[in-house]
Parts: sequence; C-alpha cells; structure tokens
Amino acid sequence: MANFYIKTNAVTHELPDNKRPKFFMFGVPGYTNMGDQAISLAARKYIENEFPEYQYIEVLEDDDDKAIPVVKKAINRCDIVAFTGGGNMGNLYSNHEVARRKVFSTFTDNLTISFPQSIHFEDNEDGRKEQKLSQAAYSKNKNLVLVARDAQSYHRMQTTFNNTVIFTPDMVLYMDPLKKNVKRSGALFVFRHDGEKVVKDSVVQGLKKSLDNGRPIEFTDTVLDDVDAITPVTRGKLYERELELFSHQEVIITDRWHAMVFSVLTGTPCLLMGNSYGKGKHAYFDWIESIDWVSYTDEEDLGRINRQLKFLMNSSRHDYDVKPDFKQLHDIIKNYYQNKK
Amino acid sequence: MANFYIKTNAVTHELPDNKRPKFFMFGVPGYTNMGDQAISLAARKYIENEFPEYQYIEVLEDDDDKAIPVVKKAINRCDIVAFTGGGNMGNLYSNHEVARRKVFSTFTDNLTISFPQSIHFEDNEDGRKEQKLSQAAYSKNKNLVLVARDAQSYHRMQTTFNNTVIFTPDMVLYMDPLKKNVKRSGALFVFRHDGEKVVKDSVVQGLKKSLDNGRPIEFTDTVLDDVDAITPVTRGKLYERELELFSHQEVIITDRWHAMVFSVLTGTPCLLMGNSYGKGKHAYFDWIESIDWVSYTDEEDLGRINRQLKFLMNSSRHDYDVKPDFKQLHDIIKNYYQNKK
Repeated sequence: MANFYIKTNAVTHELPDNKRPKFFMFGVPGYTNMGDQAISLAARKYIENEFPEYQYIEVLEDDDDKAIPVVKKAINRCDIVAFTGGGNMGNLYSNHEVARRKVFSTFTDNLTISFPQSIHFEDNEDGRKEQKLSQAAYSKNKNLVLVARDAQSYHRMQTTFNNTVIFTPDMVLYMDPLKKNVKRSGALFVFRHDGEKVVKDSVVQGLKKSLDNGRPIEFTDTVLDDVDAITPVTRGKLYERELELFSHQEVIITDRWHAMVFSVLTGTPCLLMGNSYGKGKHAYFDWIESIDWVSYTDEEDLGRINRQLKFLMNSSRHDYDVKPDFKQLHDIIKNYYQNKK
Repeated sequence: MANFYIKTNAVTHELPDNKRPKFFMFGVPGYTNMGDQAISLAARKYIENEFPEYQYIEVLEDDDDKAIPVVKKAINRCDIVAFTGGGNMGNLYSNHEVARRKVFSTFTDNLTISFPQSIHFEDNEDGRKEQKLSQAAYSKNKNLVLVARDAQSYHRMQTTFNNTVIFTPDMVLYMDPLKKNVKRSGALFVFRHDGEKVVKDSVVQGLKKSLDNGRPIEFTDTVLDDVDAITPVTRGKLYERELELFSHQEVIITDRWHAMVFSVLTGTPCLLMGNSYGKGKHAYFDWIESIDWVSYTDEEDLGRINRQLKFLMNSSRHDYDVKPDFKQLHDIIKNYYQNKK
C-alpha cells in the first residue's frame, strides 16, 4: 500500500480523493530517534491490521501546521484524528506539546486520540505554565481520548486533564517478536545523552569493566547519528537494522525504554536503568515484568548488578502476550466507527 | 440511611419495594479481615456519594446463594449488579471465586461489575482448571466489566478473559484521609499468616531489634481476632478503630497492602514488603509511589532497610489525590444509567 502523507518539501502527496474513512496521524517524527520511529511504524501497523476499513494518513511533524487547515476542510464524520505517541507529553519537549495543543483544539468534532504517551510536567514555573496551556487546549475537545502507556502517566493524566484517559502499553509492544536464533556476541551499552539522563558514569564504567573479559563492548544510542532524517518510507528498513543489531548481542545495558522493548522483541537479555522521571521503570513493571530476560534496576552496587546480569543472561526465552492490553484502544475506535458509519 | 441487605440468620431485610434503581453488591464479607471490610465500606460510600439515584443493597457472602434467585426475580433494567473487590480473584480463595462465577453467569442482562481486584491463577493443575471454569462463567456475561486494581492484574485479566477490563485503584483509596495530629509512639508490625506470606522471619526480627530502642513494639494483623464476624452495621466503627490504631504509630512495617493504605490515610510512615505474587508491590507503584511517607521494598539487607525507614520517618506529609483515578468506573456506571433510564 502506498504511503500517503502530506509533505511540503521533497515529496508532496495530496489527500486521497476516495470515500474510505481516514485515520489522520499527526506529529509523525522525522528525527532519528529509533524509539519514536518504531512507535510510528507500530501505530500504522496497528491501525492497518485492526481497522483495515480506515485509510491511514501520516502527517510529518514539520508539516503539522500546513496540514491542519487542509485536513480540517476535508474531514468527514467517520474520520479519526490522532497524535503520535511517545515519551514527550509535558514541558520537556515543548515543540511536540505545542503541536499537540493545536491538533487537539482544532479537530473537536471527531474522535481525537493521543496515542500512548508518558507525561511529565516539571514542578517548577515553566512546568506549571505549560501545564495550564495544555489544560486549556485539551479541554476544548470533548472527543479527545488520552492514552497513557504506564500507570504513573495514567494517574498524572487523570489528575491533570478532564478528558477520557485509557491505559495501554507503548505501541512498539504491538510489533511481532523476531524469532530467529543468531549467534550472540558482545555487550551493547545504549545510553541517552539528553536532560533525562540520571545513571552515574561510575556505574556504567564499572559494568563495562566487569563485562569486558574478551567480549566486544560497544556504546550507542537509539538516536541514530548516521542518517540526518527518517521518513515513513525509510523507517521500516532502519527499524529492521536496529532489531538485527540487538538480536546479535549477549546483553543490553540501557537507560532507554525502547532499547528494552527492542530487547523484548529480539529475546536479548537487557537491564534497564532509570531516567529523570521513571517512565521506563513504570512501563517495565506495568507490562513486561513477567518476561524473564529483561529487568529493571535502580541499584548502584556493582556486585548486585552483576548478579542480576548473570541471571538475565542465563534465562530462557518464553512466549509472552501483550497484544490483549491494547483492548481499550481497540474498543474506542471500533465503537466510534460503528456509531458514525 | 438504613442498611439494606439480605441476611438469612440474625437479621432479614426484604428487598425494598420502591421505584429507585438498585445497586446490588454481592459477596460482602462477614469475616474479620479489615482490608476487605474497608473495601466494602468504601464501595458503598463510593456509590452513595457518586450515584445517589441508586439504592445500595448489600448481600453478605453467606447469603449469596439464597439471594441470587430473589434478586433475579426483582431486578429491573436500570439496576446494576456488582461483586465485592479485593485480592481474591483466582484459585487461591476458591469460595470467593465460585460465588463470583455464579453471580456473573446469572445476571447477564444487566451491567455487572467486578469491583477492583487483583487476580492470581497459579501456574499448576489446580490453577489451570479453576481458570477454565472462570473463563466459561465470565464469558456468559457480555455486560460484565472487570476492574483491575493494579497494572499486573489489568494485564492478567485482559489475557485471561474476553470481558471489558478497566483500571482503577483499590476502593479504600477513595476514603478520606484522617487529618488530625496525634502523638505518635511505637512501631507496629502488621504481617499476614496465610499462604501468601514470603517475608523472612530473620528480616522481621532484625527490624524489630533495630527499632526496639525504648520504643513500644507490637505485632498484629489486619485480620482481627477479637471479634468473630463483622457486618455492614459494625464495620464502620471497627474501621475507625483501625485508623485510630494506625494514626498513633511512628512507623508501620507490613506485608499487607491495606496496612499500607491505612498508613496513607493516616499519614503514618510505612514500609511495605512482598507477598507471594506482588499484589501490594504493583498497587504501590501504580497509585501511591509519589506519597512520601510510604514505600515498598524487596530488600533483605537490614542496613539498607533501616536507612529507608529513617527516610520515611523523617518525611513530611503532603496532599495527594487518587480520586480522579476512579474515572473509568464512574463513566461506566454513568453511561449505563443514562442509556437505560
């Protein structure tokens, strides 16, 4: 199926002229964070698998402003508007939050879904100011449904906004696991370089030392630095390349939630550490604590962490099933379509 | 308001003969577990506060079997059937599970709500057998809504049953906090004596020793042993007595989830430890991790636990707000009433 999306620079696609109901996904990332790219890939796969009656249309984040009036003019009663999921609701990534407010406060007559997100407004002047702006914008839309991807965010969304809030996993957990047996070698350290980083360098260096007994050790991030931008056309291949990378590792040490998700999907032993506000920790306990080859820790004692790593690296693979946990999202879309068609 | 409930021994109340819609709560406990009693108290308070149009009718668990045909005959289209919340869905407490199946498979034409529960079917022959029986019974009721009180249970219910599953806190977190400043003295150890117990005696005794510097130390359980049974008439006073007991303590050490909830409500420093399947741990992380005077640990190192206790005992009290987290339950009931009336 062709990719339809509105893009004002390199490639421009017009809105398709047909009678199918449309699912407009705004805020689709062009930047090179593979976690966010995988989210967009999974959201598309989810809608196209579960609701084939809908035509899925992606609006890249750079085009949100130009696309809003175009979509506003073309939108029909069955159509659904959505905004990309991730870990950026709040005041830490205000470009995303500003775009979200515009979309939510514009399409007030259609089901509008904020795809699975974590939320964090800081408890300071900027956080409170931005929260008020978001509350004002979100409250204009009675058809807006917020999806929380962890219980902490579910609680925060319900205490912050008056909108309906539902609870599902991160979209990437909808993706199929990669089931092949490849030879594993090496430890991959996947760490963020942004303001959310809290893991101490001494802990990371200590773990590097203890894993470094002839084993290849590499450092990377899920934010790619060998491409400038990613589009819905190129992200599929890059996602596969990322899973391929993970599937060859003996172990992943990370503070990136999606590095843990990629480890789940590839059966790769993985230890997740904290970020500044617990988004990975909560998502881990909520959805994947029962998966034997991944775990979370706040520990700083190297002896204890090494014992935990040994346990993970010796664990067996087993089946798991997170897909039923998307049911609240499924029911919201299904009921809307049945009422409107 | 009078207590209406069907009771076949001491006191018998007939079903009230009026036109008000009824809210039938089955499985109301008569046993002396104050956690479960507080749940029943809170459920009644919740419905009476939020849906005053409904008349709340409690059916004690001993009377479930006799009440089912009586209610079946009298039930009207606006009426709602519910089964008491708690931590007993699964195969560990089969008397509750058997009663639940009967109620769910009987009232299939009315909204039926399984109040906030944790679920645990063991991964053994008995667990699998009982799970199949529950799946068969629950699947007969298309109007059944299961409420999970922690994310682990939300996941398990969605992977086990085809019914709608929603996510709210334990009902007791709906109760108002006790805001009075009383003189605190002593440490209270509140430990279970049932099959869910996993905390090592050496840890408990070690903590007792370190807290025992002239401070009164007592051991108790939230299951009372000075009364034989509790009814909807007597539970209110016993609940107040329990909160009074907690509010005078300097610190609570416990493996009982509701001992932690009573500590939240009374502003009492509390450290919660594990049970056999993590129901307290998950509920803690999901709803009350942001409350400073309570915490959870799996730790067995006494030095570390003592540092955590010191931190809790030095923490300040602050406001918290869990009530918005009951919104999914509220919306289900509100929408049902508006569609049926």
